[in-house]
Parts: sequence; structure tokens; C-alpha cells
Amino acid sequence: MHIRIASGKILDIRKDENLLQAFKRQGVYLVASCGGKGICGKCRIRISKGEFHTASRGKLHSHEIESGVVLACQTFPESDISVDIPKESQLVVGDVCEISRTNDLLETFRSSGKTLSPLVKWVPLEITPPTIDDNVSDLERLKKSLKAIGLQNMSFSHGFLSTMAAELRDARWNVHLGYIDGPEVVFLAPSAHKAAYGLAVDIGTTTIVMYLVNLADSSLVDVGSTYNSQIRYGDDVITRMMYAAETGGLNELQDTVVTDMNNLLTPMIERHAIERGDIESVVISGNTTMTHLFWGLNPGYIREEPYTPTLNFFPLWKANAAGLHVGKQVPIYTVPCVASYVGGDVVAGVLASHMHKKSGITLFMDIGTNGEIVIGNNEWLVTAACSAGPCFEGSGIRHGMRATEGAVESITIDPRTFAPTLGIIGNSIPIGICGSGMIDAITEMFLTGVIDQKGKFIRGITTTRIRDGFEGPEFLISSNEGRDIVLTEVDMENILRAKAAMYAGVSLLVKKVGLTLNDIDRICIAGGFGNYLNIEKAIVLGMLPDVPREKFRFLGNTAIAGAYFCLLSQEMREEAEEIAGKMTNVELSVSRRFMDEYVSALFLPHTDMRQFPTVKTLLKNKRYG
Amino acid sequence: MHIRIASGKILDIRKDENLLQAFKRQGVYLVASCGGKGICGKCRIRISKGEFHTASRGKLHSHEIESGVVLACQTFPESDISVDIPKESQLVVGDVCEISRTNDLLETFRSSGKTLSPLVKWVPLEITPPTIDDNVSDLERLKKSLKAIGLQNMSFSHGFLSTMAAELRDARWNVHLGYIDGPEVVFLAPSAHKAAYGLAVDIGTTTIVMYLVNLADSSLVDVGSTYNSQIRYGDDVITRMMYAAETGGLNELQDTVVTDMNNLLTPMIERHAIERGDIESVVISGNTTMTHLFWGLNPGYIREEPYTPTLNFFPLWKANAAGLHVGKQVPIYTVPCVASYVGGDVVAGVLASHMHKKSGITLFMDIGTNGEIVIGNNEWLVTAACSAGPCFEGSGIRHGMRATEGAVESITIDPRTFAPTLGIIGNSIPIGICGSGMIDAITEMFLTGVIDQKGKFIRGITTTRIRDGFEGPEFLISSNEGRDIVLTEVDMENILRAKAAMYAGVSLLVKKVGLTLNDIDRICIAGGFGNYLNIEKAIVLGMLPDVPREKFRFLGNTAIAGAYFCLLSQEMREEAEEIAGKMTNVELSVSRRFMDEYVSALFLPHTDMRQFPTVKTLLKNKRYG
Repeated sequence: MHIRIASGKILDIRKDENLLQAFKRQGVYLVASCGGKGICGKCRIRISKGEFHTASRGKLHSHEIESGVVLACQTFPESDISVDIPKESQLVVGDVCEISRTNDLLETFRSSGKTLSPLVKWVPLEITPPTIDDNVSDLERLKKSLKAIGLQNMSFSHGFLSTMAAELRDARWNVHLGYIDGPEVVFLAPSAHKAAYGLAVDIGTTTIVMYLVNLADSSLVDVGSTYNSQIRYGDDVITRMMYAAETGGLNELQDTVVTDMNNLLTPMIERHAIERGDIESVVISGNTTMTHLFWGLNPGYIREEPYTPTLNFFPLWKANAAGLHVGKQVPIYTVPCVASYVGGDVVAGVLASHMHKKSGITLFMDIGTNGEIVIGNNEWLVTAACSAGPCFEGSGIRHGMRATEGAVESITIDPRTFAPTLGIIGNSIPIGICGSGMIDAITEMFLTGVIDQKGKFIRGITTTRIRDGFEGPEFLISSNEGRDIVLTEVDMENILRAKAAMYAGVSLLVKKVGLTLNDIDRICIAGGFGNYLNIEKAIVLGMLPDVPREKFRFLGNTAIAGAYFCLLSQEMREEAEEIAGKMTNVELSVSRRFMDEYVSALFLPHTDMRQFPTVKTLLKNKRYG
Repeated sequence: MHIRIASGKILDIRKDENLLQAFKRQGVYLVASCGGKGICGKCRIRISKGEFHTASRGKLHSHEIESGVVLACQTFPESDISVDIPKESQLVVGDVCEISRTNDLLETFRSSGKTLSPLVKWVPLEITPPTIDDNVSDLERLKKSLKAIGLQNMSFSHGFLSTMAAELRDARWNVHLGYIDGPEVVFLAPSAHKAAYGLAVDIGTTTIVMYLVNLADSSLVDVGSTYNSQIRYGDDVITRMMYAAETGGLNELQDTVVTDMNNLLTPMIERHAIERGDIESVVISGNTTMTHLFWGLNPGYIREEPYTPTLNFFPLWKANAAGLHVGKQVPIYTVPCVASYVGGDVVAGVLASHMHKKSGITLFMDIGTNGEIVIGNNEWLVTAACSAGPCFEGSGIRHGMRATEGAVESITIDPRTFAPTLGIIGNSIPIGICGSGMIDAITEMFLTGVIDQKGKFIRGITTTRIRDGFEGPEFLISSNEGRDIVLTEVDMENILRAKAAMYAGVSLLVKKVGLTLNDIDRICIAGGFGNYLNIEKAIVLGMLPDVPREKFRFLGNTAIAGAYFCLLSQEMREEAEEIAGKMTNVELSVSRRFMDEYVSALFLPHTDMRQFPTVKTLLKNKRYG
């Protein structure tokens, strides 16, 4: 049987294969964050012609079902079929906004004056071929040539030596050797060897972002991102750790995240016609739990008091230890972690923010699933985690999505008509709402009197935009081609909880280090918000502190930025280790004051309006204006 | 269905399971060097009662078939059956002669004054348990405690760290750490940890011998030996190398030899109730091809001029790199090799012979499948290989067997009646003939006029002992319980070729180093001959040079002896490396003179009788006596 895609492409499908599998096998990649289990509801496609049956319709709406929408992973054709794959279901590799941001990063790196020094260093080596009068072993010959150029005491893994003999002869004893710190020889290439590629990966609890980097010139070749399929075992790190403790759970979680990474990698290298063997190094950054899970280490003790990770500084292990589909010998550098709830993603963030180089005080806030804060300067760094939750990455929000093409990233609401004006990533048709869009939406609804200080809809407003959905009242943000985008009261509760956790963390940590908000010279905001975050609105929301606006810098996804820097430079890796070594972790979760601060922050912007003087003025002016 | 064994034991058998599989599953181990493929014909058993069918009768004789003998691996019961398992089919673990020899070895080691220093060194370590105020990672805590006792810069593998967190807590932070040179921490045991075990393994082309050693007191716990199942791909290293070049061949050969080792190990640890996890280190010695195959390295370039191995000095790799069924982290020390045809078995032999410590000149001859020779003293060592073939280990000889219980190891023949008097290992019923028995038999047949100088039967001798078998004329050595043991003319051709290769090698190498046989102070003979080798008869055969008898020492299997020493002692491992580093290899195979010497030696004892003055006298006295 055959599948005709609206683009004109024709695929085949095997017996007992679902549409998602058939697509994947033939190089058509859909979003499927649950891995094809019918849970995430992301692999929506529309069947315009042909017979089929579906095992489950998951979270589809009745109007979607009526128009022929099905979940590809649950659908089995019974005849030749024709399908449309809507944009939001296509796996977007190489987001426009990510690439443009990364070119900024590259400029940052180049202007730093740091030398390009990836994990693998290459040396040309001419080896004397053996003769009957000089037939010492291949390895002894190679060591002799290395010694002649001053490289001694190298180690050689079983994996390297398994293929060395044939590689030496294929290259006619005229080779390039790749070695890593150890020192250990890891690669052997013909002397005509071209510069290779590296991967920087941010393994977030909710989102995985992968950069494919050309290590010859440090340029970004492509970007891929996807939801972390571990989401199907739970939204936060705690539920993942609990699942890891079940029989086989640890292996399953490791396999899930590594499979996501392999699935991101494959279309990227195919698109750029890069050989898998041309990838020579990988850097990962993730929180401590994600890092443990990637390496198959039980994160169980992170969860139990006294919250102790197995390790924070990871050896340079090889790709095959994790199951990543690159060469077995490829070294993986793990950005070091600090403590159970402050991981390599935060260290990468500090690295990208340069706060560890500045004498003034910086407050760094990483608004991801966990929400981490760092305060400090070039002398000291103090950090804490505050469990914000994954909503700003789109998870747990009805029409939430990551900041990729089609996401509503900015909103203004007309105070008279309540009609929203939307900014959409890629200027395309809106398909969901990302973190910055949520912040804008909730703040605009508050300022236009649609919701109250608790994030509840104010009764008696006459607009068709507020309506009853199947989860309770909701606000209609956009309606396009029969697909509505709404923000529900439940969504807003989640957002309030997330922002309250962040603010409570900041508030408490500033006090813990004996400072006030006025002592902060610079506030760096990190998070997967794409190109845009409206600082003003985030202050009105009460997520960011109400301090002079010129102090704020929005840095985007600093976990991937730091990983990218570590992929490029030895100095950056050394700085990352210095940062991790010197950062002091404060356990907020054991503090009763944290709960008090959190409850106080569950308002728009806060129960204590003295902390938000400019918002107070704004609201006063509005009220009487 | 059930199987009743003559010993009284009752086993069950599953559907589609052959008898060999049913036996093995229930702890009854048979000899099955082909791995149960019906090729080797070693797993003979007799079915005394019950219905069955057999897939193949392999090499069984018609009289065996008539008496109910079947190959266990080819036989499937169709009712309850009763079976006899003859002694020669039982897998003999812990040969009496091997154990007695090894106790001599142990005395040798103890009297050497060398300290017991296995690969893994253990230190007790008390680690401060984490608290909420001091919750740095497990690894940082462990490193801190190591630093306090002066152990720094240790590395830690992914395998070690995968289980460390749970092990630390199980042991309540009070542990014993095992580390190896690197330095690398490899094991963590509770503080009540008892001394563990080690394996020394001689991986011969024909025979594999394994010692299970108690590392607390260096004593031998058990010995196992088996044919190397790689035999099914060919008798010699050349055919194995050719097979390794075929698709999948390398993996298959590696898997075969590792499976043999796993099959030797399992009954040994079960018999002594030793946990698999109590095995902490392994030493292997083998020729260069066997060593490459064990590690899954393509030995192909060994065979092609200029005969270059991939490596001779092997890193301390872990058991999981080879697939050996001991702990993944167990280090395997590989006795270093010298050249393509002079391997770690020869280095182990030199080590065991102490020739590298003596100022006088020693000639060392290892009479195994390949046949290696070393000449030298404490200043220099020269070595050569001479492709003797596997016949002295029983392979390629009609009733050949290894020197284990039931083997005919010595023979005298009455010059009048031609009746042989046999010495049998273990004083039991003869079941085959081992190397020393072959040497005795052929020499006695020569001296009593049964065969001529070319090893052919002399016509016109009236004895029923010489008869026509299905391979041509043969001599009946023993007839017992319906099972005859014979030596055929084809067998004798093989033996002559083997001894000629050895003698030609000695003759040429002595000349190459500018000496004569008279300059040799000591001749050490190694080989799997059990306890016995009649030097006098080996000289008459023309295998050993005709020099004063007091110069000869018979050392037995020195490959396993050297491996055992390396398992026990760091100094021995260092000596092995010195030996391998200083030995000079001479390629005899490229010398035309070798072929001349070989052809001259294809006689009893030699075409040039001047080289065998005492044999000449003996024959003269006989002839005219």
C-alpha cells in the first residue's frame, strides 16, 4: 500500500506498520514527543482520501476528528491513502530563530579572543611502513612516530585498536591522529582528513536542543529541538527519579533520552550530507538528574535527603557508554554539575553570562522546568533551585509549545475590544503559544481587567473571547483554520505557580547572601523563550523583580550556549570547571521561609505591593486614568 | 521425560533439547570440543535402555553403534532412558597431574622470595557519610578519602560509577577499594570483604588450560582444560587467520574461544561454591594469533608479509571488552607477545624457565601446536617459530588426546612379542594416547624393528598387532572393553613432520646465533605432556638434539605456569615485559635453509647420523647385539 503526502511525495507502508513508523522509515519526521504511544497527541495528520483504522484518538477534538485528523502513531491504512501533514506536526530541525541567535553566540565567542580548541586535537603523523627486517607491531611503530613529535604516554582503548591495523594500511601509513586529554588516542584518519563536526546538546527536563557545529570554523550547521520523551514518565525530575527506581526504569529512561537525541541527529546529518563518522566530539549540558539519566546512573540519591548526586565532575567517557549513535570512540564532555538540583545547564548558563568574570553583582535566572538562580561575581557564586515547573516550555499548558516556528511569542490585548494582536515566530499561522507569549497574555489580561490578581477571570465582562471550555473558563487567543488557541484558568494557575517559585527563590537567595535587590547590578534571564521576552510584562506578572529595566539582559537558552562554547574551546571547559567548583549551593527546599515567600508570590504581581513600586504606580494610573 | 545416569543421578530433559544440552543445564559436563555440533565425536555416551533418535552418528565405529554408543549432542530421547557416561567423555576439571605440578609451581614461586602482588590492590577506606550541610557528590567524598591516604589522580570508569552509589550505601560508607595500575579504581567491596580469586589462562591453538587461583594465599583451587573449539575452523593458526578474514569470522572465532573459557569456568566455580563476582583478575597467555583473536583484533596482518601484529604489549583491558563472564570491571593482563609467531605463551615460558636470569646459555623448546624455540641467557634472547602442528596435543592423531586422566603417557614394546606395556595417567583404563605416549610408541616401534627410518611399517613381521585399519596399516596399542587404541601410519607421518619442524628450528637457530649444540648449557622442554616425557626416546625420535642427558629439564606447560606467576606478582609481570622487550625474533619461514633442515629431519632420527652419535651407537649395538 502507498501513502501520498500533499507535498507530492509517495511512501510505502508495510503490514502492521503505523503511519508514524512508515514516515520515519522513509525520512519523514513528525513531532512525537511520547515516542509514538498515542499520549502526546503531537503527530496529528489529516487523511484526505482512503480507508484506515485507528487504535486510539488520544486528545483529539471532535471537530478535528470530523475533518479527518488522526494521530499518525495510532493509524493503520487499509488502502492507499492521501495525507496532509500540518506544519505543527512536522519535526522542525533548524529553527530560524535559533540559528540567528547562534550566529550571535559565534560572534560572542570569536570576539572573546579564545582559540578554537575542540575536545579532539589532531596531528599529522607519518609512520614508517613495516618491512621483513623491521616488523615490530603496528602500535609500536605508531608510538615511535608519536614520540618523535613529543607525544608520549598516550593510552589506546580496545575500540581504537580494534580498527587501527586496517586504518593504518588504508591510509598507507600517512595519517592524522585525533587525541583527547588523558592523553588518549581516539581517532585515526587518512592524511586527507577534512575538519569534522561536533554536537552540543542541552538535555532539558522538558526540551532537548541539539547544535550541529562545524569544528573547522566553529560555525553552526543546524539546530534541532524536540520534547524530551521522558515526559511520558512525568513532567518533573522527581517523577523521573521515582521511575528510575523501578525495575528496568533507569535503562528505559536512559534509552528514551538517548533515542530522542539519535532521532534529532539523523535528519540533521542527512540534510547536510554529513557522515555519522565525521562527528568527532559531543558536549552535553543538563541538570543533575538529566545528566545522571543520560549516563545511565541511578539518580535516586538525588531525591533522598541529604540530596547527594553520584558525581558532579564527569570523566570524558565515550559515546558507546551512553548508546549515542555516533562513532564508539567519540568523547562526550559533560558540563559539570554543582549539586543535586543545580546542574551543568546552570554552569553552562553562568559561563554564557560571563557573570563569573565581572566584579559587579549579577543575578542569573534560568527559567526552565526546574528554575535555577545564581547570584555572584568574579569572586563568589551562590546558587539555588526552585522547582518552577515546565509550563514556560509549553508543557502542562493546553496550547503550550516550545518557541519554534508558529508559536505566539508576543501579545497585546486591546483594552476596549479585548482583541489580541499576536507576534508569531516565523510570521506564520499560529499553532500554539510559547513561554513569552504566555507571560504577555496573562499580563495583558491582568492590565485590561480580564483577570484579577489571583489569575481568575473577572465576571461580568462582555466579550465572546471568554468562554467555557471543557477545562473551565478560557480566553480565546486565536482562531485559525478551525484550530483555536486558548489560555485556560488552569493554564494560568500553572503559570502563577511557576513565576511564584522563581520569584520566591530570587527573593530568598538575595536575602541569604546578605544583599537587597538594589545591590544587584545586572540581571540575566535565560530560558527557551526564542528571541523575545518582554521584561516589562514579566515584572508586571511578578516573575522578575521590579528594578530599573536597564539592568536586565535576556540571554535565551544559555544551557545550549554554554555547551556550544565548551564544544569549541578548552579554555571554556576549564572555566566551566572553575565555575562548578566555586559555586555554593543553598538548599531552598529545606527552608520554611521559601514556602512563605512562595505563597506571597502567588499573586499578580505579589501580595506585598511595596516590592513592585513601578507596577503599583502603573496600576494606580490605570485605575484612575 | 527423564534420563537415568548409571551413577544413579536422574535428570530431566526438555522438548527439543539434545542430551548434551540437558546434561549441561543440570551440571553434568561432557567433553565437547566442537561445541555440540557432532563434529569432534568426543561426547560419546551409551544408551542402555529407552527409545531415542539421533541426527548424526559422526565418527562412531560400527561396533560402537551396535553397543548403543551415540553422540550426546546429536541424540534426542523419545522415552525415559538410561545412559552410561564413559570416563573419556566426562569433562575432567582438576586433573590430578596438573594440580600436583602446580603445587610445585607454587613452591617455586614462594621460594623465589617475590611478594604476592596481584593486579588488583585493595585499600580499606572510611568515607564520611553525607549530611544536609555537607552533601557534595559521592565521588568527591570518595576522592577526598583517597587523597587522605595518599592515593590521587585515580580514574573511574563508567562501569564502576554505575554501581558505586548503591554499593557505598550498602557498605555504610565503610569500604574496601580495589584499584589497578593506571591508576584506576575498579572495585568497591564492603569492609568485610574477603580475599578473592584470579584466573590464569593458557589459550593454546589446540588446548585451553585454566587455573582458578586463591589470591589470598596464591594456592591453586582447581584446573580445567579443554580443546580450543576454534579447531573446527582449522587445526593451525593460518587457517584461523584466514577464517577471521571472512565476514563475521573474527567475531565468531572470538566468541568461540571466549565461550570455551566461560564453559571451563562455570563448573569450576560451581564446584567450589565461588561467586562469579569473587573473581577479581585474569591473566591470559597465548600465541600472538590466539591473543589477537581473544581480544577480537583481526590477526590478518600476521599472516601477510612482513608479518606484523597489531600490538604486542596489551593495555590492561576489562573483561567485558572480551565477553568473559566475570565482573565487567575485572582487569585482564595479557602476557606480552614478541612477534607474529612468537607470543605471550613463549614469553610466559621463558619467565617460568628462568633462562633470562642465568648467565649460561639455555635452549628453550615449547612443543605446542606452533613449536617455538628460544636461545639465550640473562643478556640476550633470540627466538623463532617453526610450525610443528598440533599432534602432540592429540589433534590430528586417530586416538590422540591431551595429557589428562586415561591417556597412555608411556610405552615400552617387547622386542620379541611386540606386546606393549603401558603407563596410563591416573592408572586408569586407557582411553587414548597423549604426546609423550606417541613419542614413546614410535621410538619403541623403531627400536624393535616394527617401523623403518621413514616411519613406515616393515613388511614381513609376524604379529597381529599390525593390521589394516580404514586409514591403512596401524599398530594396536591397547584393546579394552571393545575400544581399541591404535597408532596408524598416517599418525606417524604427522608425528615425524612435527618433530622435524622442531629439530630443524633448533638446528638453524643455533647456527644463526653463531653457536653449536655443544655451547648449550641447558635445554628446557615445555609442552602439554603431563608429568612425563622420556627425553631419551625423544632423542631417538630425533626431536631433541643428541647432547648429554643431564642438560635436559622437562618443565611441562610453561605457558600456564608463566601466566600463573603473572597473576600472582607485579615483579613477574615486569619481568615478562622485560623479556618480551628484549627478545629478538628470527623469521625462519623466510629462510630456504629451514626447508633443507626440515627435509633432512624427516627421518628417525635424522638423515645425518653424525648429529645423533649416541643413537648411532645404540642402533649399531642393537643391530649386532
